[in-house]
Amino acid sequence: MIIIAEKLNGSIPSCAKAIADRDANYIREFAKKQADVIEGVEAGGFIDVCSSVKEGEFEAMQWMLDLVREVTDCPISVDSPDVNVCIKGMQYLEEKYGDKKGLFNSVSGEGNKFDAAFPILAKNKWDVMILLCDDTGIPKTAAKRIEVFDAAMQKAKEYGIADSRIHIDPLIEMLCTSEDGIAMVVEVMSHIKKNHPKVHISGAVSNISFNLPVRKLVNIAFTVLAMNAGMDSGVLDPLNQDLMGVIFATESLLGMDEMCMEYIGAYRAGIFGQKK
Amino acid sequence: MIIIAEKLNGSIPSCAKAIADRDANYIREFAKKQADVIEGVEAGGFIDVCSSVKEGEFEAMQWMLDLVREVTDCPISVDSPDVNVCIKGMQYLEEKYGDKKGLFNSVSGEGNKFDAAFPILAKNKWDVMILLCDDTGIPKTAAKRIEVFDAAMQKAKEYGIADSRIHIDPLIEMLCTSEDGIAMVVEVMSHIKKNHPKVHISGAVSNISFNLPVRKLVNIAFTVLAMNAGMDSGVLDPLNQDLMGVIFATESLLGMDEMCMEYIGAYRAGIFGQKK
Repeated sequence: MIIIAEKLNGSIPSCAKAIADRDANYIREFAKKQADVIEGVEAGGFIDVCSSVKEGEFEAMQWMLDLVREVTDCPISVDSPDVNVCIKGMQYLEEKYGDKKGLFNSVSGEGNKFDAAFPILAKNKWDVMILLCDDTGIPKTAAKRIEVFDAAMQKAKEYGIADSRIHIDPLIEMLCTSEDGIAMVVEVMSHIKKNHPKVHISGAVSNISFNLPVRKLVNIAFTVLAMNAGMDSGVLDPLNQDLMGVIFATESLLGMDEMCMEYIGAYRAGIFGQKK
Repeated sequence: MIIIAEKLNGSIPSCAKAIADRDANYIREFAKKQADVIEGVEAGGFIDVCSSVKEGEFEAMQWMLDLVREVTDCPISVDSPDVNVCIKGMQYLEEKYGDKKGLFNSVSGEGNKFDAAFPILAKNKWDVMILLCDDTGIPKTAAKRIEVFDAAMQKAKEYGIADSRIHIDPLIEMLCTSEDGIAMVVEVMSHIKKNHPKVHISGAVSNISFNLPVRKLVNIAFTVLAMNAGMDSGVLDPLNQDLMGVIFATESLLGMDEMCMEYIGAYRAGIFGQKK
């Protein structure tokens, strides 16, 4: 599982406060803690950096990027709904730190986002997160999301962006208003896995449990089912030890970890099951 | 999910001590606590009673059965590897308490177990747990377990035991020595579900995590995957709140709980997410 570590995000109240107060220690601390976990995961991952600031979004991101780079070389995910902020963030990391790896998070079928981002991504090796929405918003059906996916893959092909660099967020929506559970999103995942096995299936795991009590249990159960459907990348909290342990356990159960060597190794490394 | 509540079992050290000391309060306490959870589960369940005593196994079971019946009317699972002890336990509950419902736990393809148990089960409405092993032991392959299953179903049919009364334990083995995860047992489950959709797929969930650290996380991940493969019955600890919450969450995710009403109801009833 590729970990896209979610804790440095201005949409989280404590992180928003740290950004507003320019509390450098907060940023460094969570960058380091998350990087430590990512280092212990075979598939690796990215530290997501999203300032979520209305005025001066890029300046805030830049401040965060420098702090992350003070404490770790872990690849970074530059995260903004604004493609231009992602471009600036990526170019900043390439120029100042020579980052050859990272995640452009994100583009979607909205407006001209593909045409704005893909020509630049065509020139480097960064990964890219694609959200399966378009100008009509979040499609209600699997068929429509698959249509957005197919169009995105066509565009990526035109620009020579390899499948293995692409992460798809099929858009995980809250379970509490669903009449058929996660059947629709599993259908989208199955289509992706079948037709583009090298594309990474990703998503923001905790969206599933919005408005429900004891969210962590819903997140855990969803993660297991999504991994079974092909999810191999996820925006999640690597400091949530139970979730991390369940991810390692699921990889073992799905036959991706012979004799549970990775599971046992991650436990010994303190990624789960231990008070730190 | 049909809950087969596992805590009254002489193979658990604290319960073995309670049986040896004839500590009636211990038995009553766990009978009541488990029954309270089972009452809150739509599919219901059974309180498993297994004395696991070498000498006087039935007498110890009888003592336990009376104590359980002092505190609850919840259906009981009479549990012994000895078919005759199960028969005696079932008949004791039928005669003394008029129990029309219960679980005969278990029979298997070993020796003449089917022919010993099925004629008696043909006369009542009790459920029966069938283990997919035979005189050769625990079959190594899915094909061989399916063979035992098919033979068992043929026998059950001869005796007029309906599919809906049958729980199959496909034999969950420890993950730590597996090279391909749970692929084999999932194959067995898929065969059962496809060919006999009314048969309950069951098993002892915690066997999966034997010899691994942080067993609860492996048990949870396994339970989710097994439910996805069709498991709808399980020998498990209903007092494990995280496991119970994950079971309710998984039912919602699999589309069996519209708008999460059962999940939310179980949370409100204190089955998970609350310190009791």
